[in-house]
Amino acid sequence: MADVILVLNAGSSSIKYSAFDIEDEQLELVTHGQVEGLFSSPHFVALNAKGEKIGEHSWGEGVKLEHSDAIAHLGAFLRGHGAGHHLIGVGHRVVHGGARFTKPVLTTPEVVDELDKLTPLAPLHQPHNLKPIRIIAERNPDLPQVACFDTAFHATQDPLAQAFALPESITKNGVRRYGFHGLSYEYIASALPGIAPDAARGRTVVAHLGNGASLCAMHAGKSVASTMGFTAVDGLMMGTRCGNLDPGVILYLLDELGMNARDIEDLLYRKSGLLGVSGVSGDMRALLASSDERARFAIDLYVYRIARELGSMSAALQGLDAIVFTAGIGEHSKEIRQRVCEQVAWWGIELDAKANGSGGPRISTASSKVSAWVIPTNEELMIARHALALIGDKREGASA
Amino acid sequence: MADVILVLNAGSSSIKYSAFDIEDEQLELVTHGQVEGLFSSPHFVALNAKGEKIGEHSWGEGVKLEHSDAIAHLGAFLRGHGAGHHLIGVGHRVVHGGARFTKPVLTTPEVVDELDKLTPLAPLHQPHNLKPIRIIAERNPDLPQVACFDTAFHATQDPLAQAFALPESITKNGVRRYGFHGLSYEYIASALPGIAPDAARGRTVVAHLGNGASLCAMHAGKSVASTMGFTAVDGLMMGTRCGNLDPGVILYLLDELGMNARDIEDLLYRKSGLLGVSGVSGDMRALLASSDERARFAIDLYVYRIARELGSMSAALQGLDAIVFTAGIGEHSKEIRQRVCEQVAWWGIELDAKANGSGGPRISTASSKVSAWVIPTNEELMIARHALALIGDKREGASA
Repeated sequence: MADVILVLNAGSSSIKYSAFDIEDEQLELVTHGQVEGLFSSPHFVALNAKGEKIGEHSWGEGVKLEHSDAIAHLGAFLRGHGAGHHLIGVGHRVVHGGARFTKPVLTTPEVVDELDKLTPLAPLHQPHNLKPIRIIAERNPDLPQVACFDTAFHATQDPLAQAFALPESITKNGVRRYGFHGLSYEYIASALPGIAPDAARGRTVVAHLGNGASLCAMHAGKSVASTMGFTAVDGLMMGTRCGNLDPGVILYLLDELGMNARDIEDLLYRKSGLLGVSGVSGDMRALLASSDERARFAIDLYVYRIARELGSMSAALQGLDAIVFTAGIGEHSKEIRQRVCEQVAWWGIELDAKANGSGGPRISTASSKVSAWVIPTNEELMIARHALALIGDKREGASA
Repeated sequence: MADVILVLNAGSSSIKYSAFDIEDEQLELVTHGQVEGLFSSPHFVALNAKGEKIGEHSWGEGVKLEHSDAIAHLGAFLRGHGAGHHLIGVGHRVVHGGARFTKPVLTTPEVVDELDKLTPLAPLHQPHNLKPIRIIAERNPDLPQVACFDTAFHATQDPLAQAFALPESITKNGVRRYGFHGLSYEYIASALPGIAPDAARGRTVVAHLGNGASLCAMHAGKSVASTMGFTAVDGLMMGTRCGNLDPGVILYLLDELGMNARDIEDLLYRKSGLLGVSGVSGDMRALLASSDERARFAIDLYVYRIARELGSMSAALQGLDAIVFTAGIGEHSKEIRQRVCEQVAWWGIELDAKANGSGGPRISTASSKVSAWVIPTNEELMIARHALALIGDKREGASA
């Protein structure tokens, strides 16, 4: 009878889950899936570790499913599916840990209230991340829950890397560069020693290129700088987010185009990036398949902005030994990897085209001065590991 | 009887001038100065080429002097001082040339109207830059006037360097990276072949570190990228401007701190940068002389941000052969030059401490892989040169 850790990643309209068996202190994925379209057309799907569908449910068009209902459905599914399995704890992805929470934490009502106070720093994500913690605590107050933060991995950064050149009257509210995708970077840092020991010890830039995208400059596996700052809209160009933008543009949008804060939020988060520039799609695969001139320009800009920010990251590291590609585009698009490596070839990166075509892990030649790698990320496993580590004691008690 | 070119740089509350004699087709500064405090406590001062005071006037506390009155006073002073001198034209610094004006232009009423349409792109500067052109044209419609743009030098940049990842509905209004300090960079580009021929041909980053500050990546003397974007608030940390800022911070200021566009403009342009971070002063000399911990942090951040943006610039250039320091801080602060060079030493920059102490021009050792230089800028001379070149024909006629 294996113990189980459940990992939840709750957004405004979806809840993603992964369940891991604990076998000989190793975590093994048994099922993952999601409830999506909570307030439009709720749909649940569950897959096994091989990606085969093992459960599905639709509530119908126009139905509104609360987060609590979705979690109840997921709980019932897991109990039915995993008869005999023993849930020992839940790990949650929480976008913001602020200045206080620089590592994962066992949640208490006090901790959740503290995390709630960070909502102004991440209004689009933080409240939804916290909902399932409260729902589960209400139903099962004895079940250990662990909050894992996207910001925590970057807590090692020097204050210079975290600072904006703003007065204390503003920064005292917590306005600084936090950096995100921390669970992804932490996973990569944990995987590097086994795959690329020199990159693990050295000056390495990890490119998390998913729907959201950022770079992390790591020295000896610790975050030194990141392209994402106060919010998840800064830095690299993304699927629908603009990335780096002159703050004066926002004043122009307010003053000259008569936009308000909500219009601007919608523009910067949902109508910019690959989608906005191409006018075609925010999906890199669609753009790569398109012959539209604007789609090509969007891809060119995407690659160019990565190269520019890579330069900034290597300045933070005072050198560059390795580049690691991860997340959707980083793991699956050999074209983008190739184009990024070509753009920064002057640093001494020599791509091995064959290795790049087959997905690595090493995609640079043996003689390449700077090495390049593809390493699939696994944020859910990272959360499960943190949860297991923090609930270890309770578990001893429970299984005794 | 030497011909004279007058150069004007008009802001919201001051008008700076320089007058150049033309001797054997060479421009020679004869007098420069300014009327400042136009709407609070107007004060005129004129210096000769050696920097000795040759004229001064105060209107008194609380007096409001219109731009037209200031120009009338300046005209009278020049006529009185330079008896027999022959004014053949006026060159004006105009911050924004937009997409159309990519080189200096002889002004006509139509040109000035076109330039006025760019006011939304630079509301704090453009209208004031244009005022003297209209005032002089009204009084002396036959006097040739030339508008020189801070944006023009950057027109050679690739569209990728100019683009924000925003949709066409926004960018069609002219929202893109223009880059500023173009007249300074153009002057440096014109001086480089005589001082540092390799830097003139190669990949060179020019650091214009004045009250405003930016970097320009030049390849063979042409602008490839710049840290300033749509406005003069982006990029490097400056005396009172924030530089690079997550656009999400602006949404936070609007939503959570209840600030409006004017509050935010005031914050980003006048209360941030060295002044905001140190809480002491926006003047680098004062900070370097201070033992205040926040002053030290402000200097550290200033240098760190230059290093980060230098990395981004070298990525745009795909390499780095030389760095040139110019403008107030760049020309006069050996400490800042030393600290920047130390921070980017990993690129192969080896500072010659003695040469740096004496102000260059070359401040790197003979064996330094990347060379470093100090070259005083001269935007007024650049404007005078453009004016002379464009009014050459009329001059032939006038002096005939």
